[in-house]
Amino acid sequence: MAEVRIGFVSRGDPESINLVRNLVERFRSRAGITIEPETAKKLGFAETRIEDMDVDFIVSVGGDGTILRTIRRMEDPRPILGINMGTLGFLVDVEPKDAVRTLERVLFGFEVMERSRLSTRLNGVPLPPATNEIALLSASPAKMLEFEITVDDFLLESLRADGLLFATATGSTAYAMSAGGPIVDPRVDAVVLVPLAPFKLSARPWVLPAESVIKVDLELPEKEALVVIDGHNVATISKRDHITISRAEKPARFVKAREGGFYEKVKSKLA
Amino acid sequence: MAEVRIGFVSRGDPESINLVRNLVERFRSRAGITIEPETAKKLGFAETRIEDMDVDFIVSVGGDGTILRTIRRMEDPRPILGINMGTLGFLVDVEPKDAVRTLERVLFGFEVMERSRLSTRLNGVPLPPATNEIALLSASPAKMLEFEITVDDFLLESLRADGLLFATATGSTAYAMSAGGPIVDPRVDAVVLVPLAPFKLSARPWVLPAESVIKVDLELPEKEALVVIDGHNVATISKRDHITISRAEKPARFVKAREGGFYEKVKSKLA
Amino acid sequence: MAEVRIGFVSRGDPESINLVRNLVERFRSRAGITIEPETAKKLGFAETRIEDMDVDFIVSVGGDGTILRTIRRMEDPRPILGINMGTLGFLVDVEPKDAVRTLERVLFGFEVMERSRLSTRLNGVPLPPATNEIALLSASPAKMLEFEITVDDFLLESLRADGLLFATATGSTAYAMSAGGPIVDPRVDAVVLVPLAPFKLSARPWVLPAESVIKVDLELPEKEALVVIDGHNVATISKRDHITISRAEKPARFVKAREGGFYEKVKSKLA
Amino acid sequence: MAEVRIGFVSRGDPESINLVRNLVERFRSRAGITIEPETAKKLGFAETRIEDMDVDFIVSVGGDGTILRTIRRMEDPRPILGINMGTLGFLVDVEPKDAVRTLERVLFGFEVMERSRLSTRLNGVPLPPATNEIALLSASPAKMLEFEITVDDFLLESLRADGLLFATATGSTAYAMSAGGPIVDPRVDAVVLVPLAPFKLSARPWVLPAESVIKVDLELPEKEALVVIDGHNVATISKRDHITISRAEKPARFVKAREGGFYEKVKSKLA
Repeated sequence: MAEVRIGFVSRGDPESINLVRNLVERFRSRAGITIEPETAKKLGFAETRIEDMDVDFIVSVGGDGTILRTIRRMEDPRPILGINMGTLGFLVDVEPKDAVRTLERVLFGFEVMERSRLSTRLNGVPLPPATNEIALLSASPAKMLEFEITVDDFLLESLRADGLLFATATGSTAYAMSAGGPIVDPRVDAVVLVPLAPFKLSARPWVLPAESVIKVDLELPEKEALVVIDGHNVATISKRDHITISRAEKPARFVKAREGGFYEKVKSKLA
Repeated sequence: MAEVRIGFVSRGDPESINLVRNLVERFRSRAGITIEPETAKKLGFAETRIEDMDVDFIVSVGGDGTILRTIRRMEDPRPILGINMGTLGFLVDVEPKDAVRTLERVLFGFEVMERSRLSTRLNGVPLPPATNEIALLSASPAKMLEFEITVDDFLLESLRADGLLFATATGSTAYAMSAGGPIVDPRVDAVVLVPLAPFKLSARPWVLPAESVIKVDLELPEKEALVVIDGHNVATISKRDHITISRAEKPARFVKAREGGFYEKVKSKLA
Repeated sequence: MAEVRIGFVSRGDPESINLVRNLVERFRSRAGITIEPETAKKLGFAETRIEDMDVDFIVSVGGDGTILRTIRRMEDPRPILGINMGTLGFLVDVEPKDAVRTLERVLFGFEVMERSRLSTRLNGVPLPPATNEIALLSASPAKMLEFEITVDDFLLESLRADGLLFATATGSTAYAMSAGGPIVDPRVDAVVLVPLAPFKLSARPWVLPAESVIKVDLELPEKEALVVIDGHNVATISKRDHITISRAEKPARFVKAREGGFYEKVKSKLA
Repeated sequence: MAEVRIGFVSRGDPESINLVRNLVERFRSRAGITIEPETAKKLGFAETRIEDMDVDFIVSVGGDGTILRTIRRMEDPRPILGINMGTLGFLVDVEPKDAVRTLERVLFGFEVMERSRLSTRLNGVPLPPATNEIALLSASPAKMLEFEITVDDFLLESLRADGLLFATATGSTAYAMSAGGPIVDPRVDAVVLVPLAPFKLSARPWVLPAESVIKVDLELPEKEALVVIDGHNVATISKRDHITISRAEKPARFVKAREGGFYEKVKSKLA
């Protein structure tokens, strides 16, 4: 049997670094270990960039943000196992006290859950794929934008709003939920479109096919919008620009740590 | 080339009956015609029960209600082409003035769109499949029910509400939309769960996989609930009863009359 | 100093009856006591109908339902002090363990909070006033009604819906909240109008002046609606009937048991 | 009878300037006319700053923005009569074609409608009063803020959100409505609190007494918020700052141009 190879990433705080140290010490005799630079530096280990990790899976010690940043770096993301060092995570599955036991089990094999990501092109140039959502937001808070949205070349809607969210099922419990979107079971492969503060009483969240090609144009020439992907501001757009959103070629992948966890997370985290 | 066989159903009002007469007269030389009893009687033609229609497609002249009633009668529904005699239809695609031209075209071939239906079992006994939605509603208006909902054997939620809706994508623009659900592109194969007036600020619409097996139990012994399928009251349930909802074996089928019609209908009908 | 006169009402269950017995025994030497018939019977005391109670305030032992039923019986309601025997009350203010201490304090004086009630007239004939809300609901669940609503003789809206709620500020955290209405601070004297499952994407909750005269007509001849006041079904209406809603002449009154309780209740009960 | 004194302000575009010119020419023989500098310059008339206008009422030719800017300049606002040069105004009441006729009528007397404004103090220092709303918005779009809100010294809620809106009844059909708030009849004197994209399923709009004293603290030290009043960015706040919101001493005033106009505007503009 080939040796299992595990990558480690962390949020970088002392508690997370400590847990990585414990896990590495415990499992280094039984698995090939690589560690991302920032964490590795603090532990005095060899550094491996996330995009260079040739591993079976990656243990992320931190919160949802740590996982999102990790996936973002990979063209073809390795499966992630998230250890929860925070309070509100939907992507993290394992409590710190269960980390050793879970890893022991996962070493003997695991199921991978694939979750579609969204790809954004700005004037044809690809931006980083989104695991949770792409937000188009007014660059001047409190100034509405006017959007024209087409789906597979049919006009879906023209509307004025503070912004638009295009979320994956994975992202439906993140920003899109705050904005009034439905909770989407992660097994449903769909894109949720949620307008932010739309100036139109009839505006509603939409659930679109994951394989849709969505185009967004800004209609107001004098205003600018930010493109924010998974909470990271990546570009500024204006009337001359064209945004195209579609399913990313490669999905995010997660190590399945337990059954039925999603509904429990919704119940415990969102009440 | 085998002769095309067309079935006709109508809402039964004089205007609809008239249109059926015109269409039958126009196309009887080129297609095999069968007509459901009520309409046939008024026209003096031979009567064929909907469930006995051996046709390539059925022309429904009326509104969404006419189409829902027609599909309901068929175990393995024939494709429907809906002529719109009303104002608010989402299932009807063709305006009366375009009926002849559309039929001329459809005689030479058409694309079929399949739309999942939902099957309901009450204590294991099947109820009629739902094209739009299954509603579980308090039998005593203004008295809340308490539901426990499990999806694929995991507890989704326990909640008190006036009722619950389980809608198909097709039904997402009908009752479920009024109750606050998202608009679901008909190409997304999912079940939308919308609570009616839930006594819980955190209750939200859910989008669940079409292949889910959903179980609902009533928790309050002294109350009763109605099971209403596509607007038809079909059963009364109480604490001893078990409801199971899953994808129906056979989908509804529609003759595709034009491209991109769904978004246009949303824009024109729901504003 | 004139003797304080206290009325007692209860939900009638053994626990509530027991608490009434304890309170009566403790305070009978210092206050004039009258007890409503059902509770009095179980305790072997003299019976006084609620509408005949000539008291400074009424102690209600039970839940919100007990309070609503008590207020409903009084043309000019006496102040209520609610002891909470349930879990979800918004009108009850005192936990059973604090009942004696609170009454000791209240005997020396208390502040009265007045809360507007709503009066309903059906074809000019008054129905019982509403402390929480008036609901107009479809008599056939899942069949929409069509309403025309005028406020102070101006057309507010025509809409199709499962029903309409007209809630007081007091009732804004009850049925109206489940239906999507805002939470109204009880110090705001206003009427909240919330449509139930409106078939119109643009329908929204309204906040209207407490002194408005609201008229509602049913537009669909073949359908009937129930008039449900504070959860009690009181009448059936159809197209020929006229409903007029306005502020009731006499408000509900509550003994102020503590400061700032409302926001705490919202936080603890509605999460 | 003393001569009526009329102030004129405009949006500054040629069409608005033209209408001001026509109105001034028509009414200068019968009324004392003063004109704000920018408009006056274009017409070659004497310039009077809005804050120095000693007039019976001000004619605002433009949209809601023109009116909001005008009121903002006045400590004790003169009544405004809004001529609508745009499409979406809620504060403008008169169409250009009706301007002469309306002014003819108003010269003989008019009713004034007072509308509460909101006053904001930042660390005790007053900011300009709000006619529509005060928005506290994340200075970094897509980064949530954490707010603690107290009303009359009681904790209302702690929540994380993109922002908070505190709207007057007048502002309930502007930004607050886009964010999901109820429509408040302008005769109801209340403050509507609407969270923007709150990360809490149970967050709801609140309706608070107009006379409330509302305090808001930012809980996250590393983040900043913008204070935006009626669409104008007026200050940046961080954890060390205290915001207090209360009813402004002087209300906005409007010339009542017709009866029942509010419901009509909602019906025609918001559908």
